[in-house]
Amino acid sequence: MLTLYYARQTCSLAPHLTLALAGAVEGRDYRAASVDFAAEQQRSPEYLAINPKGRVPALAGERGVLTETPAILLYLAQSFPAAALAPLDDPWALAQAQAFNSYLCSTVHVAHAHRRRGARWAEDEAAQAAMRAKVPANMAECFDLIERELLRGPWVLGERLSICDPYLFTLTGWLAGDGVDVARFPRVAGHQARLAALPAVQEVLSLHR
Amino acid sequence: MLTLYYARQTCSLAPHLTLALAGAVEGRDYRAASVDFAAEQQRSPEYLAINPKGRVPALAGERGVLTETPAILLYLAQSFPAAALAPLDDPWALAQAQAFNSYLCSTVHVAHAHRRRGARWAEDEAAQAAMRAKVPANMAECFDLIERELLRGPWVLGERLSICDPYLFTLTGWLAGDGVDVARFPRVAGHQARLAALPAVQEVLSLHR
Repeated sequence: MLTLYYARQTCSLAPHLTLALAGAVEGRDYRAASVDFAAEQQRSPEYLAINPKGRVPALAGERGVLTETPAILLYLAQSFPAAALAPLDDPWALAQAQAFNSYLCSTVHVAHAHRRRGARWAEDEAAQAAMRAKVPANMAECFDLIERELLRGPWVLGERLSICDPYLFTLTGWLAGDGVDVARFPRVAGHQARLAALPAVQEVLSLHR
Repeated sequence: MLTLYYARQTCSLAPHLTLALAGAVEGRDYRAASVDFAAEQQRSPEYLAINPKGRVPALAGERGVLTETPAILLYLAQSFPAAALAPLDDPWALAQAQAFNSYLCSTVHVAHAHRRRGARWAEDEAAQAAMRAKVPANMAECFDLIERELLRGPWVLGERLSICDPYLFTLTGWLAGDGVDVARFPRVAGHQARLAALPAVQEVLSLHR
């Protein structure tokens, strides 16, 4: 059975939602294991033995441990093919899905991380404050591109729900804390509401609050 | 025909090398179009019409434009299956390949970018200097993980060359400029030498100097 290691209010919400959207059942298809960031459990020897990066998400399976959100999402799409959460038979379309998720992890998530994780990139507090100050503008710039160019609608890739949707939903949920009003991006706000309304989503969301 | 938009001394070296390793021939299978960063060509209206992100690499094909290095590399592996540059028939192994490339784009490339692209994340010069100061330590930490945990040897995924190798090679090439001696990481240094020795690689490298 798969084990998803997750922590509240992190990007591990994306694979957790993906499992739910794929029809995977907790206790039957996977186990969700909470990692307590408040208690720094992600830096415990036990967790570092699972994921030496000390981050979530991590997905443990029979063959080892998989990390990095875009990779986990692709694996879940392949593991639950009946849910058709990625265009697995169309290399160009699959690459477009991976491009969207890669943008989220390498640009949008990174822009967000400069608010509370600035110590990763500079030691002194004044520099971290300067980073925090730019987070709203950077997040707004990212979501402007998503609104104008990347989100096809109603779902990210168009008519079909995919692994891109729970990932976008996760990062959209960070906007308010980053000082950006999602209402500036009506198509993104519509996407957020549309995904939140799916029955499979609510139960997982309650674990991440 | 595919068109790869690239710029010297950027991560666009990775897909360029991948094309060469896949046996793709310039002029027959693809065209390589240089984007002149010194002249800010990446922000020209002409280039922004191709890639609104104003970055490289971008890969144009019959169905549009693909961006983001990990997505382009996956697409190239699928487009040139005879070269077997990704374990396309093994979802777990493919996800491990994607996890490696995702780590490179979202953590290692980002760590490096704080040296010369700090203005992305903070306006003031003192903050950017503080970021630059931490780049050597951050890059060393990333390559320590690659050396110890991620690089299986002789190639990233083990016995078979894959899309992970030209990407690692590209970022390894940034270490010296980032103030890190690659000799600290003997397995990574061996990987770099091994890839550089492949005949297909030299011609592409000469375009990126």
